[in-house]
Amino acid sequence: MAKFLTNRDDNYAQWYNDLVIKADLAENSAVRGCMVIKPYGYAIWENIQAQLDKMFKATGHVNAYFPLFIPKSFFSKEASHVKGFAKECAVVTHYRLKMDEDGKGIVVDPAAKLEEELIVRPTSETIIWNSYKNWVQSYRDLPILINQWANVVRWEMRTRLFLRTAEFLWQEGHTAHATREEAVEETERMINVYAEFAENYMALPVIKGYKTENERFAGALDTYTIEALMQDGKALQAGTSHFLGQNFAKAFDVQFTDKTGKLEYVWATSWGLSTRMVGALIMAHSDNHGLVLPPRLAPLQVVIIPIYKTTEQLNSISERVRIIKADLEKEGISVKYDDRDNNKPGWKFADYELKGVPVRIAIGPRDFDNSTLEIARRDTLEKETVPMAGVTAHIKDLLEDIQANIYRKALKFRSENTFYVNKWSEFLEIIDNQGGFLMAHWDGTPETEEKIKEETKATIRCISFDTPDEEGTCIYSGKPSKRRVLFARSY
Amino acid sequence: MAKFLTNRDDNYAQWYNDLVIKADLAENSAVRGCMVIKPYGYAIWENIQAQLDKMFKATGHVNAYFPLFIPKSFFSKEASHVKGFAKECAVVTHYRLKMDEDGKGIVVDPAAKLEEELIVRPTSETIIWNSYKNWVQSYRDLPILINQWANVVRWEMRTRLFLRTAEFLWQEGHTAHATREEAVEETERMINVYAEFAENYMALPVIKGYKTENERFAGALDTYTIEALMQDGKALQAGTSHFLGQNFAKAFDVQFTDKTGKLEYVWATSWGLSTRMVGALIMAHSDNHGLVLPPRLAPLQVVIIPIYKTTEQLNSISERVRIIKADLEKEGISVKYDDRDNNKPGWKFADYELKGVPVRIAIGPRDFDNSTLEIARRDTLEKETVPMAGVTAHIKDLLEDIQANIYRKALKFRSENTFYVNKWSEFLEIIDNQGGFLMAHWDGTPETEEKIKEETKATIRCISFDTPDEEGTCIYSGKPSKRRVLFARSY
Repeated sequence: MAKFLTNRDDNYAQWYNDLVIKADLAENSAVRGCMVIKPYGYAIWENIQAQLDKMFKATGHVNAYFPLFIPKSFFSKEASHVKGFAKECAVVTHYRLKMDEDGKGIVVDPAAKLEEELIVRPTSETIIWNSYKNWVQSYRDLPILINQWANVVRWEMRTRLFLRTAEFLWQEGHTAHATREEAVEETERMINVYAEFAENYMALPVIKGYKTENERFAGALDTYTIEALMQDGKALQAGTSHFLGQNFAKAFDVQFTDKTGKLEYVWATSWGLSTRMVGALIMAHSDNHGLVLPPRLAPLQVVIIPIYKTTEQLNSISERVRIIKADLEKEGISVKYDDRDNNKPGWKFADYELKGVPVRIAIGPRDFDNSTLEIARRDTLEKETVPMAGVTAHIKDLLEDIQANIYRKALKFRSENTFYVNKWSEFLEIIDNQGGFLMAHWDGTPETEEKIKEETKATIRCISFDTPDEEGTCIYSGKPSKRRVLFARSY
Repeated sequence: MAKFLTNRDDNYAQWYNDLVIKADLAENSAVRGCMVIKPYGYAIWENIQAQLDKMFKATGHVNAYFPLFIPKSFFSKEASHVKGFAKECAVVTHYRLKMDEDGKGIVVDPAAKLEEELIVRPTSETIIWNSYKNWVQSYRDLPILINQWANVVRWEMRTRLFLRTAEFLWQEGHTAHATREEAVEETERMINVYAEFAENYMALPVIKGYKTENERFAGALDTYTIEALMQDGKALQAGTSHFLGQNFAKAFDVQFTDKTGKLEYVWATSWGLSTRMVGALIMAHSDNHGLVLPPRLAPLQVVIIPIYKTTEQLNSISERVRIIKADLEKEGISVKYDDRDNNKPGWKFADYELKGVPVRIAIGPRDFDNSTLEIARRDTLEKETVPMAGVTAHIKDLLEDIQANIYRKALKFRSENTFYVNKWSEFLEIIDNQGGFLMAHWDGTPETEEKIKEETKATIRCISFDTPDEEGTCIYSGKPSKRRVLFARSY
């Protein structure tokens, strides 16, 4: 077990926090609730960004950038949006500082008060739809398919590194369409992109579904979500895609002339995924030795460590490694040769396990003589000795196998922790003792949903797209229900 | 000449603004001084980012992310930094909004006042060095070579799209070193990276040099700059790299144990380049027809336009174009086939000229029959008819040639507008009538520099690294001088 790492089974929250710090992913900053994303953590985010950006462009989207600040009055324009977002926000009230009287410190210049306060964006629907107003006249100007990579701020009271921070990084897509059908199609397309990304890159099985009215994005007619199960039995909402109807078009008066010459309001969607996903990645796969990273998102896929006593041995090993490394890199595999002499191999082994590097290659004098390598895979911690010849193809396959195995393991965990529950007593027992995904009937009322939340802290994560119709009775009220919904406690 | 575009020679400032708007690069937002970067403008920035990021990584840097907000007190810690940056800043004073009494609008909750105000970062030295304090104990922890891609805010009173905006996007490198020599070396390395990027990608010849004390970054011991000449004879500072000495290490108490066991302060550099470069790109190369983009940064390198009367003609042309397009894309060239039927070819030609697409291919029925294509290059507006066979290689060469030609043209313009001036009367005449780079002797005092600025609005852009020593007398004071410096009016 990695030194200083709390045991995952003893205290999951502390294990998570230890891991983020020890693996050098992020740390708290001097500013309440804001984190510093350290290079190793940021490299994971860069890989997430690069892949998602490619998928967004492949589905016809382009990037743009809108202001960080939103005039306060914009929030009041969409009635339900204001209730959801005009809450815990960072408010800019002044635009100048000046030296204080003793000339040593600085103070806010009271003369430089803004006429209207500016809100640091918690999400950008309002400022963006205020721009779209000028961009759209005719159906020929539609659709607008824009994504923005940006920082946003929500003044959270209880924060946790990656999972919930006052400032976070994300992407937010904001699209405008001529018809309801097109907008709904886009909302679906993007939740599918998120699901594909989660499953194929994050190795994270997800349940796709829609949110209940209570849990919808403020201002949306429908919110689609992907929900993942973490190793402590809690759910994590990993990405959402919103069908906004004509709400923002009406609030910002965005109309267009359709093909028949009629004036219509524009239809909208928005969708977002954030640095929270780095937290999900950690919580879904990692263990008591440290991070377990899926190869497709790992900043470093292979590390090579020499084991030697003499400089002569090191030199021969290094010479051989140079060739192996170049061959691997030719295949697009990221490789580091760690020949630093200030740490022992054992220390390095533990350190790269902590960092979740998928494959570790060790090469010592005996390997050198036998033309073999010792290969260890991070996901299972298994070791094998393989011939040097053909090692590139072997590693390539191994990385694919690790990616698939991490996914399979997460899927197995989810299957074992998904429960079809029919009795309230059973619901209570499972939610308190095991957690997991609870598939149960619900009478469809916000009141029941609210009561279940109050009594158990479990919420309806989503109404899965794939759940079949099934007659039943509500787990709580006993009233009739037509399908099961997904309950869980969540992050 | 592109419709609605002010003539460049009549009113350069208006021409620039028209161009940014008409070419769909950016627009002003509802928030004073903040721009919306539209997809086409953002695509240029993405290309700038991608190339710079590659160059930063090739020189050993990694990316990270630090908070948007900086506690007010941090600015007071470095004495000269506070004077330079604790001025026109966006200040966050509250963290909550609430519904107003009538329930319709929102107001800032007076109960949610921050104990210490937060400044939206105008630059991140302070928050970053406050973090480095915890990262550095021994010489083994050095160097730290970090870059950040971020938004920053400086509350500028007079703003212009891309050139000077309240919020802008940039990258800021912040490095920490064990020795003065290493830090100076890094400062030089990065100004060289910027110069290489400007010349090879932006096609923008630059003068590398150091800033006078008056013009230095607040908190730096030395500021290196690259200075470019715009077509109106004004200089534009295109990137800066600062040697910060131990100023920030002392302000934030960042010490390390060196190899001999002695406690030392860490040496620092910082360097930045911003969305301002998009403005420089526009101003350096464009003309009365619109943008002229260097191929290496153009979002779209080749556009293909069909000319046809009948659907049958269009179908045959489209079939042939599919092959040409696929061949070009195989070579990594970005191509668009514009077969939209709602605009005439002439309209499309003008539109892609406005957008600065380097190469336009037109194909009509006669071309189809003769197996030829009409190729127009944006930089010279020259057209030629070439055989379809071998067109991929031809376009590849053409793009290289356009890139080189744009650079050559800018270099020629700079040569013709660089003046070695020895008399004050001549200085005045040139600066008022022609502008350009004025190489003149200066006595080395801030007082003279200040007076020249007051009388002519010209500043010392830099003391070029490449200017030879030369005995002379100051253009203004007549006092002795050892080398010429570069004067210009600037953006």
